[in-house]
Amino acid sequence: MSDINKVVLAYSGGLDTSVILKWLQDNYKCEIITFTADLGQGEELEPARQKALKFGIKPENIYIDDLREEFVRDFVFPMFRANTVYEGEYLLGTSIARPLIAKRLIDIAKATGADTISHGATGKGNDQVRFELGAYALMPNVKVIAPWREWDLLSREKLLKYAQDAGIEIDMKHKNGGAPYSMDANLLHISFEGRHLENPSAEAEESMWRWTVSPEAAPDQAEFLDVEFEHGDIVALNGVRMSPATVLTELNRLGGKHGIGRLDLVENRYVGMKSRGCYETPGGTIMLRAHRAIESITLDREVAHLKDDLMPRYASLIYNGYWWAPERIALQTLIDHTQQCVNGWVRLKLYKGNVTTMSRDSKTDSLFDMTIATFDEDGGAYNQADAGGFIKLNALRMRIAANARARRK
Amino acid sequence: MSDINKVVLAYSGGLDTSVILKWLQDNYKCEIITFTADLGQGEELEPARQKALKFGIKPENIYIDDLREEFVRDFVFPMFRANTVYEGEYLLGTSIARPLIAKRLIDIAKATGADTISHGATGKGNDQVRFELGAYALMPNVKVIAPWREWDLLSREKLLKYAQDAGIEIDMKHKNGGAPYSMDANLLHISFEGRHLENPSAEAEESMWRWTVSPEAAPDQAEFLDVEFEHGDIVALNGVRMSPATVLTELNRLGGKHGIGRLDLVENRYVGMKSRGCYETPGGTIMLRAHRAIESITLDREVAHLKDDLMPRYASLIYNGYWWAPERIALQTLIDHTQQCVNGWVRLKLYKGNVTTMSRDSKTDSLFDMTIATFDEDGGAYNQADAGGFIKLNALRMRIAANARARRK
Amino acid sequence: MSDINKVVLAYSGGLDTSVILKWLQDNYKCEIITFTADLGQGEELEPARQKALKFGIKPENIYIDDLREEFVRDFVFPMFRANTVYEGEYLLGTSIARPLIAKRLIDIAKATGADTISHGATGKGNDQVRFELGAYALMPNVKVIAPWREWDLLSREKLLKYAQDAGIEIDMKHKNGGAPYSMDANLLHISFEGRHLENPSAEAEESMWRWTVSPEAAPDQAEFLDVEFEHGDIVALNGVRMSPATVLTELNRLGGKHGIGRLDLVENRYVGMKSRGCYETPGGTIMLRAHRAIESITLDREVAHLKDDLMPRYASLIYNGYWWAPERIALQTLIDHTQQCVNGWVRLKLYKGNVTTMSRDSKTDSLFDMTIATFDEDGGAYNQADAGGFIKLNALRMRIAANARARRK
Amino acid sequence: MSDINKVVLAYSGGLDTSVILKWLQDNYKCEIITFTADLGQGEELEPARQKALKFGIKPENIYIDDLREEFVRDFVFPMFRANTVYEGEYLLGTSIARPLIAKRLIDIAKATGADTISHGATGKGNDQVRFELGAYALMPNVKVIAPWREWDLLSREKLLKYAQDAGIEIDMKHKNGGAPYSMDANLLHISFEGRHLENPSAEAEESMWRWTVSPEAAPDQAEFLDVEFEHGDIVALNGVRMSPATVLTELNRLGGKHGIGRLDLVENRYVGMKSRGCYETPGGTIMLRAHRAIESITLDREVAHLKDDLMPRYASLIYNGYWWAPERIALQTLIDHTQQCVNGWVRLKLYKGNVTTMSRDSKTDSLFDMTIATFDEDGGAYNQADAGGFIKLNALRMRIAANARARRK
Repeated sequence: MSDINKVVLAYSGGLDTSVILKWLQDNYKCEIITFTADLGQGEELEPARQKALKFGIKPENIYIDDLREEFVRDFVFPMFRANTVYEGEYLLGTSIARPLIAKRLIDIAKATGADTISHGATGKGNDQVRFELGAYALMPNVKVIAPWREWDLLSREKLLKYAQDAGIEIDMKHKNGGAPYSMDANLLHISFEGRHLENPSAEAEESMWRWTVSPEAAPDQAEFLDVEFEHGDIVALNGVRMSPATVLTELNRLGGKHGIGRLDLVENRYVGMKSRGCYETPGGTIMLRAHRAIESITLDREVAHLKDDLMPRYASLIYNGYWWAPERIALQTLIDHTQQCVNGWVRLKLYKGNVTTMSRDSKTDSLFDMTIATFDEDGGAYNQADAGGFIKLNALRMRIAANARARRK
Repeated sequence: MSDINKVVLAYSGGLDTSVILKWLQDNYKCEIITFTADLGQGEELEPARQKALKFGIKPENIYIDDLREEFVRDFVFPMFRANTVYEGEYLLGTSIARPLIAKRLIDIAKATGADTISHGATGKGNDQVRFELGAYALMPNVKVIAPWREWDLLSREKLLKYAQDAGIEIDMKHKNGGAPYSMDANLLHISFEGRHLENPSAEAEESMWRWTVSPEAAPDQAEFLDVEFEHGDIVALNGVRMSPATVLTELNRLGGKHGIGRLDLVENRYVGMKSRGCYETPGGTIMLRAHRAIESITLDREVAHLKDDLMPRYASLIYNGYWWAPERIALQTLIDHTQQCVNGWVRLKLYKGNVTTMSRDSKTDSLFDMTIATFDEDGGAYNQADAGGFIKLNALRMRIAANARARRK
Repeated sequence: MSDINKVVLAYSGGLDTSVILKWLQDNYKCEIITFTADLGQGEELEPARQKALKFGIKPENIYIDDLREEFVRDFVFPMFRANTVYEGEYLLGTSIARPLIAKRLIDIAKATGADTISHGATGKGNDQVRFELGAYALMPNVKVIAPWREWDLLSREKLLKYAQDAGIEIDMKHKNGGAPYSMDANLLHISFEGRHLENPSAEAEESMWRWTVSPEAAPDQAEFLDVEFEHGDIVALNGVRMSPATVLTELNRLGGKHGIGRLDLVENRYVGMKSRGCYETPGGTIMLRAHRAIESITLDREVAHLKDDLMPRYASLIYNGYWWAPERIALQTLIDHTQQCVNGWVRLKLYKGNVTTMSRDSKTDSLFDMTIATFDEDGGAYNQADAGGFIKLNALRMRIAANARARRK
Repeated sequence: MSDINKVVLAYSGGLDTSVILKWLQDNYKCEIITFTADLGQGEELEPARQKALKFGIKPENIYIDDLREEFVRDFVFPMFRANTVYEGEYLLGTSIARPLIAKRLIDIAKATGADTISHGATGKGNDQVRFELGAYALMPNVKVIAPWREWDLLSREKLLKYAQDAGIEIDMKHKNGGAPYSMDANLLHISFEGRHLENPSAEAEESMWRWTVSPEAAPDQAEFLDVEFEHGDIVALNGVRMSPATVLTELNRLGGKHGIGRLDLVENRYVGMKSRGCYETPGGTIMLRAHRAIESITLDREVAHLKDDLMPRYASLIYNGYWWAPERIALQTLIDHTQQCVNGWVRLKLYKGNVTTMSRDSKTDSLFDMTIATFDEDGGAYNQADAGGFIKLNALRMRIAANARARRK
């Protein structure tokens, strides 16, 4: 435990990472740099600075960054270009934030000459993998300290005892048994795991949800929303252009108001176990629906199908922590290429948990051809007789096979 | 037009197929067998018999079959085992009925010695392909008459004129301009296309929908539903065992009541054009959600991912009419194999358009291991230190690459 | 047959396309532009000019282009970047030339104001599809005349009679029954189909092969060859830099000399039938082996596997004629992206039909790390204990499942 | 190190596993069961028994099994049904033997009440993963001792010293520095790794190869071979029916004689590094060629393409050690289903390193239809005009897109 020089710690300011900070100081006797990011989790960051100072962290070693625009622009939006969903349902809200944190940890390590990073993710989850794969990809010889995999503070009691001994302030919540769930939040979602939820046959409590009202409590009046896309990304809502983070903030507000984006599922973790999670992704749920709708009129059929075929693999890469891996980047190259023509608008209806596509169009890139699609006479735009040959040749291999079978009987 | 002997016609009893019946008699001078199926479209079939008799069809040449159980058991359920969705949204309600109709047309042709089948699908749509690919696969030398690709009755006026001249009864609806939409229904869904919908930027009218109330009009009280699965198929609702068709009928009732399963989309037809369709699939929407939920605790991760990777291809095969093709059957073999362990129950909440998974379990096949998933101490069931090696080796190729890049700079 | 204005004809100067030229003049009374390409098929092109003049084609309407460099640089090389093989064996020699011909036909049509193209491919083969899909993609309203699908000259006798009546010179070969095989050649390969080969249980005759000696007749002395790659393309042979077409010409010479690249197979045509073909692809066979070898040390594992997973789809797209389709272009974007680091050299041994990789290296992009791969002590570069955790977590889902099964017994 | 009761050791009788045996006795003080398998590696097994006895292993604890038939029938043949090749070249000779060894280790553990298995694979390779994943899947709570990941005998000197101290006989080869390569052999192949080969730019020495003569040294006369398939497996050679292991033994003899099946490559290991390997797979190389040929006339096109698309994933599963995983079994279900119709014969020519398909046929399952494939008049079996419609509809989406682009300019 002696060859550690300087550690960059992903520090939230909460109890767990405060204990980690102290434990690192106690056990590694090393200089510590704290990094706290605003990813839209909706918490004040300045208290983290004050706490870090109390631990004796030098002011110049305290990094507090507002990463919201970078997060949405360079991580969330690229992911949504692929209509990315893990295991049919999960919108990857936690997964997509980790590579950005990994990147910043490494950026800071390089800037400060640190040789080590540390984080508060447990040894059972996906987040340790996502942080560390990212870190290793970006700085191959970085050292990693994952206290949850090393220390003996595995029970709540031991952790609180350590905090108390170290003079770390323990708020009421923790004294009363800690948060009822393990939560994680950023601009894309808030997640709930653990405790009561560990039994997949137990229903989540209504009181758990934070970002969305229940559909029952949502307004009785539907709200309509016009979404405008450029190159596959949302650039305006109801005619007002806004930055990526502003788009997502506004969609979260709208989705939350209308009870949109709650999800309760059992997912397969990369480390090999099944896990139950509840998620609120109000803005993301709206984005996914809208993006599918704008692609439906602007993307070529076979390009859309190619994307659909590759999507589960791309989703798994992000879920498993391979954002910075070359295969994710190769897939992104293809995905981004297809979005050049994904321009236009979609009109959505938001109502009590539902996001419904009402209409869609693209002045510049629609591939919808009414003269051909019409059920009425089309003036020769499409020759129905062509279909006979089309079917005959597509059937040929099956006809040959059936004839061969018949001949042999 | 002379080498046709006997024709089996897919006959609904409606105006279009009645004109086809007459037109076949006029133009091909051949014996005609009518086939009318109850697939759960919710229409009386006996009138079709009376109409056929009026055209001089011999009583023994009139086939009217109730195919509802076969439809759900052998087509809908197998398809849902794969969580099948076309282009991210469409539940394939029309597509999945066609192969059964094709099969019955050919069964009847073989039983009656007919050499030809005929149907009322147009030359622009997918249904002609689905009927004919199925027919050719099952009877490779069958002849096909697709009047819409042959005749000159392409406008509504000409068709009505022909009907009038032939003494075919034209009801008020058609006199007033015909159905406002092209509709198709079976136990899985009802679809709407054409007319007003041909413009994808025009919103569908509320009055169009038939099977579901609007979410706004749905009950203010949620309803909970217990769904039980065996081998991936639903066998009981709220503890009551029922047959496949009864399951779907009941789910349609529940879904329709709660405003569930409306969809408005633009899809890519196999014949090469984009087309706008609106669908009501109340029961199917509930089934899909429930099936994903039961798989989430009973399927191995990699098996689930394999299914997800193959699903879009499987969906395209069904959409494009390849149900009876050997590659669909090969995929089905794999899919069915995976469903052996998909047993258990799911509890759903139905409320104003939403189907929400509340809880799920499997007494016999759950792979959810609480002792491992827990955030609390697990008594050694999982060794957190293992994760370090897991991450290190998964990162190795990226670390080698980054080191190689660094060495070369 | 009256609305044709000007036709660009893919004209080889041979008997078939000469009959087509005359037949177009007779039946369409239209102006004709002939296009003859040097794709490395090894035939003189000037005779085609003389023949065209004899038919009264205006000198300015005779296009004769040397496309060899463009063919290899923009078509063959991009295809080989993907290690493209159709159905496990076929190197796509015919398929890859068609999109270039389609492109030139359309370029010339646009330059001359022609509204129609014509070609000599039959109605049973893949080439008609490749020509026409390309043409429609590049000029959507172009008209296509495919005489073999229209005329009644379907037997050899009728064709010769027509030629004779038209005063077309018929050489000895055709008088004696025509070429023993249907052949197609370009810089990538020569193909043989038809006649004797139509029976897949009949062996090809040794006398058929044109470009390669038999392995038996090849030199008894092996020859070694150094191949140098930049960005996935071969840029030098034995230390001598050369242009793309020169590379392939030289590889054909070497491969032909050493009996390399013969292939006898049954393939599945896009139009639905199986077909037997024999191919000589001497240079391509060498390129494929070399490209795999250079990728083996420069490509990341998962990127290589992604390419391998996508390759059959990419191969089918090219085989089926979709070179100019957006999905092929999207895949190419990904493929080309991966080739940035495919730089280095490969040493091959050529001997009596065999191409053997002897060694390979990349000064700039090798990912082979000897310090890690070694069986000897590695000084801690790799911690063998990591493997334990790696295996444990990869096994976890299977262990949980086996334990669950055991508990239930 | 005290909770180990009984260990089943995969014991070859060679120096390394003898040291392991002794080391286990010294360190774990546990009862040891040795398992030695004849997989066709071509070594006497009885000496292993004598050596085990010398270490004090009880006679009833010495298992020596001839697994050759099971190996080929249940592992090699199923794998070849998929035309399985890893990374385009490697025939998986080592990978496919490991799951059988894992299965026998566990069978014996269950039969003898052992709680632990042990093997001699290193911590850098794939084999440890293959052994252990298999073991955990079949007996989830088995303990595994992998001495190479635990002990400190990592250098050759230390190992020899330990052996000497333990009175283990060290033969001349090892005294002289050990085998020049790390080798592994079974009925499918022999592999070479390490030492001189660790540098991928160094050429393998001719003297290394064991099972095959060089092409140069192979007979000057080609030999022809008739291979007969039933359900995708070879059942007869030159008209003589034989058992699976006999088939492969005979193909190895023939391939070895004709210099067939040498391979020199760099592969990507599952543990994250690139590794250079040389392989001789004479019989397997012949089998692959023959199986592709018989499938070419008996498999439907789309079924064949589905298999080709899935093959790389299936190959990776086997390479990575997931033979006993549910996703491999699911894929196998599909693969085996497709082989029902893979019956017939293939005629091959073997000559100086080349395996060439000469002809192929299937009396019962050929899908090759000469009446349709012919270039001559086919009497209407195929209507060439159908191709026009086929092409038109396949081109439609591209034409619509091009027209839309043109309209906007």
